Amino acid sequence: MLSVIILGSGNIGTHLFKTLNRSKQVAVLQWYNRTKNNSSNTNGVQPNCFNLNELKVADVYILAISDKAINEVSEALPFDNRLVVHTSGSANISAIDKKNRRGILYPLQTFSKEINLNFSEIPICIEAADKKDLSILKKIGEYLGCRTHAISSEQRLSLHLAAVFVNNFSNQMYRIAHEITDVKNINFEILRPLIIETARKVSVTTPYHAQTGPAVRKDKSTIKKHLKILEHYPKYKILYEEITKSIQITHGK
Amino acid sequence: MLSVIILGSGNIGTHLFKTLNRSKQVAVLQWYNRTKNNSSNTNGVQPNCFNLNELKVADVYILAISDKAINEVSEALPFDNRLVVHTSGSANISAIDKKNRRGILYPLQTFSKEINLNFSEIPICIEAADKKDLSILKKIGEYLGCRTHAISSEQRLSLHLAAVFVNNFSNQMYRIAHEITDVKNINFEILRPLIIETARKVSVTTPYHAQTGPAVRKDKSTIKKHLKILEHYPKYKILYEEITKSIQITHGK
Repeated sequence: MLSVIILGSGNIGTHLFKTLNRSKQVAVLQWYNRTKNNSSNTNGVQPNCFNLNELKVADVYILAISDKAINEVSEALPFDNRLVVHTSGSANISAIDKKNRRGILYPLQTFSKEINLNFSEIPICIEAADKKDLSILKKIGEYLGCRTHAISSEQRLSLHLAAVFVNNFSNQMYRIAHEITDVKNINFEILRPLIIETARKVSVTTPYHAQTGPAVRKDKSTIKKHLKILEHYPKYKILYEEITKSIQITHGK
Repeated sequence: MLSVIILGSGNIGTHLFKTLNRSKQVAVLQWYNRTKNNSSNTNGVQPNCFNLNELKVADVYILAISDKAINEVSEALPFDNRLVVHTSGSANISAIDKKNRRGILYPLQTFSKEINLNFSEIPICIEAADKKDLSILKKIGEYLGCRTHAISSEQRLSLHLAAVFVNNFSNQMYRIAHEITDVKNINFEILRPLIIETARKVSVTTPYHAQTGPAVRKDKSTIKKHLKILEHYPKYKILYEEITKSIQITHGK
């Protein structure tokens, strides 16, 4: 039985608590949060520790807190030589105070508290200086039902950047489409099967081979029609032009 | 029984042929292509008509051809007052020669010949001047197993623009991520669950509410780290900056 303490009750902390608390191989000893006043609500279960000095002895402490708090909170931990990991995509492993054994448990997924997630499909990137610690993190990944990947801090930052492109930036593409359709009284629903298929397609082929549309076809006539509509949206016109150019550079002959 | 003739053996023509040919309510009388030499191969079934003058009498002629060919091919049809429709997202209904009754049957999806698609999930946008013709197109949509939506030519062009954002442009985001991960020897596979979840999320919430990440959080420290990596990719740096700005305008207070 592995004992774990989770610190933080944001999106990741809440999902980790819910999922690890269900596992028979893990004892979640405590769930810490800085303050009592928080909106997290996991069927009535709430953080039950609000003072770092009251933390018990556990095999792993998971800091599911904002990047900028990692340093301060890890420094304030009243113990040393225990395994302390953070869950950030972009913070270096060295952000954790070196008095403890350091590691990373970075679930590569988009989290919203209110949206249920099947943790078993989430890749977990793990890192630790010590081999034994790495195998503990691998076990936690397994108990979460996930695939784990040993990824260095340098790799993780690039992966996080790539995740911003596929997640945040794609989502902004959806948002722009939502605005464009709304103005013409077209139900955004109509685009949902296309959104799903676009994502599904790169599970069976590469994004390079999946590309279609006026940019890659160099269909100037259609691009011209689109730019005419976008005259009403100058802020999106520049994105259209830049991404079209980017596609044409990628597929240039 | 509705009789249909399909013209064109590109991605859409091939998928339409395959699916309509399976329907018990539709007789696909002919499958026309300009030339015999084409790479389409639907389990050995190939276009069987190569001369517009040999076209039979049918209830509907579907022009699954490139936008710029619509005018010329529809003009060359050796008959009049029959229902002729095109499948383009961006061509106006008036691109079809007016000697025939005109319509649109636009399947809003990304097609690749080699990737199987379940047609039943594809929204079909239909348009026709005549009510009876519209109901014929609605029937074809049903026989394909699809939901149909009456959409005007003006709406359809905006919808097509929106589709470019959610499909081609999101796919380019995936491509950029693929390049960034490749350079660091990270398997692009790791990003696939995130790609799928990003797409799935906007089926349960709006893109506005689904947005997360450094841009919307105004997390300058992470953005700075990302921009540092992107110094090696000047062509993607400008996209990163512009899309980050776009997210911040969308979510500006």
